[in-house]
Amino acid sequence: MSLYDKFLNGSVVALSRIITHIEDRGDGFQELLSRLYRKTNGIYRIGLTGPPGGGKSSLVNRLGGLLVDQGHKVAIVCVDPSSPFTGGALLGDRLRMQDIPQDKGVFIRSMGSRGSSGGLALATSNVTVALDAFGFDTIIIETVGVGQMELDIIDACDTVVVVLVPESGDAIQALKAGLMEIADVFAVNKADRSGSEQMVYDLKSAMNMKAVKAAWEVPVVPTEAVNNKNVDQLLVEIQNHQNYLETSGHLKYRRGHQLKRKVEQVIERLIKGELSSTILTDTILDEVAAKIMTGEDDPFSAGQKLYMRFKQKS
Amino acid sequence: MSLYDKFLNGSVVALSRIITHIEDRGDGFQELLSRLYRKTNGIYRIGLTGPPGGGKSSLVNRLGGLLVDQGHKVAIVCVDPSSPFTGGALLGDRLRMQDIPQDKGVFIRSMGSRGSSGGLALATSNVTVALDAFGFDTIIIETVGVGQMELDIIDACDTVVVVLVPESGDAIQALKAGLMEIADVFAVNKADRSGSEQMVYDLKSAMNMKAVKAAWEVPVVPTEAVNNKNVDQLLVEIQNHQNYLETSGHLKYRRGHQLKRKVEQVIERLIKGELSSTILTDTILDEVAAKIMTGEDDPFSAGQKLYMRFKQKS
Repeated sequence: MSLYDKFLNGSVVALSRIITHIEDRGDGFQELLSRLYRKTNGIYRIGLTGPPGGGKSSLVNRLGGLLVDQGHKVAIVCVDPSSPFTGGALLGDRLRMQDIPQDKGVFIRSMGSRGSSGGLALATSNVTVALDAFGFDTIIIETVGVGQMELDIIDACDTVVVVLVPESGDAIQALKAGLMEIADVFAVNKADRSGSEQMVYDLKSAMNMKAVKAAWEVPVVPTEAVNNKNVDQLLVEIQNHQNYLETSGHLKYRRGHQLKRKVEQVIERLIKGELSSTILTDTILDEVAAKIMTGEDDPFSAGQKLYMRFKQKS
Repeated sequence: MSLYDKFLNGSVVALSRIITHIEDRGDGFQELLSRLYRKTNGIYRIGLTGPPGGGKSSLVNRLGGLLVDQGHKVAIVCVDPSSPFTGGALLGDRLRMQDIPQDKGVFIRSMGSRGSSGGLALATSNVTVALDAFGFDTIIIETVGVGQMELDIIDACDTVVVVLVPESGDAIQALKAGLMEIADVFAVNKADRSGSEQMVYDLKSAMNMKAVKAAWEVPVVPTEAVNNKNVDQLLVEIQNHQNYLETSGHLKYRRGHQLKRKVEQVIERLIKGELSSTILTDTILDEVAAKIMTGEDDPFSAGQKLYMRFKQKS
């Protein structure tokens, strides 16, 4: 039986190997993705992000458990753009195994920067295609940090949960990091710590300060993931948002937009591949750098000239 | 007198306008950058990064003041990939004005995502070219957060300072966020808070755990930027690192590598521009998305077909 057939038969081992194949951009992965895409059913994507140290992993695990209890087929993808590891992240998986009972059947995958340099957002969305085709109906994507890369990944989610803790600063810090704009739901985790009520209040105030009143009012939920307190309430708000997206027609609109972005990403990757085999070889770059360092050329003129060469060749 | 002549004459207003022109990718900006590049003298680039709320801005301002006292010509660039603002960031500049005396002559510029979508790292390095050509000898680049985008920016610096606070978690969190790999110097800021000594100890231990002993031993400096305590010691370590890079030959090697990356970025931007005017137009993308949504096509095949069209056209 081929790997793909085993995948269709529900083999988790085959799923893992297919994901690795996609991440590594192995032979024929593009055709494989085309086939997988036609098996997808529109998996619901919940994104969790926020500064490090907010207890996101614990929260994701609790949410995963609750979703399974509701009868959902759940996959968790933890994206750490700064980690060179993939498959099993360096700290993540050991901690995770303690949290989620094996028999709950949640599929957990960590993704690092290996094999997806410059394309972690694309790699994440490709892996989502495989998980969707396999039959999962809900994916929770957790990202570390709040940089542009993470925003790209989170941008491809349906419901975005921003996780803060009282200690991670105040509402102004969240504003500064651009978190207000992307949050569909706020979780103030480690809510047993001091300053939690103030932070919930500050976030609510900040959301109310928005000039345009949105149809969806961003809820702020205090949680204690480690003590399993109020995570069920967080899930209620996530599912309220899902319901809002579905009934308002926003979900269809969002996904159309995301599709276009996906096509763009596919093209960008193809071009990147061609560049590195034609004009951006080590030999050519070494020559160019040497000329710039002696003052014969500059990076802008050099780039322009190489670009003209690329256009003539391709 | 032309804008460029005014720039050469030392007009800060002309500098500001030229930076805006570069950020906006205005007419002939590429040729302008070529000209500017040939005026550069190898400005020293200090990068500061770390989680939000660490007091990076205060630290940058204090360092800037100390460098000016040493006779350096200092520019500060604050990069916030999540901010849609540029020129003057929403909170940053007001706070900054209180910190740095006007007469110290430090040039401060904030950069957000406006006018540099997908290319903030390139935009930052282009602005550095202008500041270098203008005559600054030291630039401090501060970035918010620790995502891939920030790592790209920080990667283009000579000395990288990672700023943590006792409250931002422990050494494990820093490890998780990939900060250990990029730090040339650690600052544990807000060192008057509890847990500071422990954190300094943890960071030092973690750095000693590295399998390969590096020639440069990463120092860990406790600071209190707000109270102006020990920032001078931080500067000593930064300049020790600079001295190490210069005497060991690493600086030349690093910059050669960065030059190649810069040429690549220039080419990538040129291609992006051509893509959006040929195959990635709104009309074409709408058609493609519609076909995918009805199941006639999938993003991977569609991307491949558009790419073939691009190659035939260009």
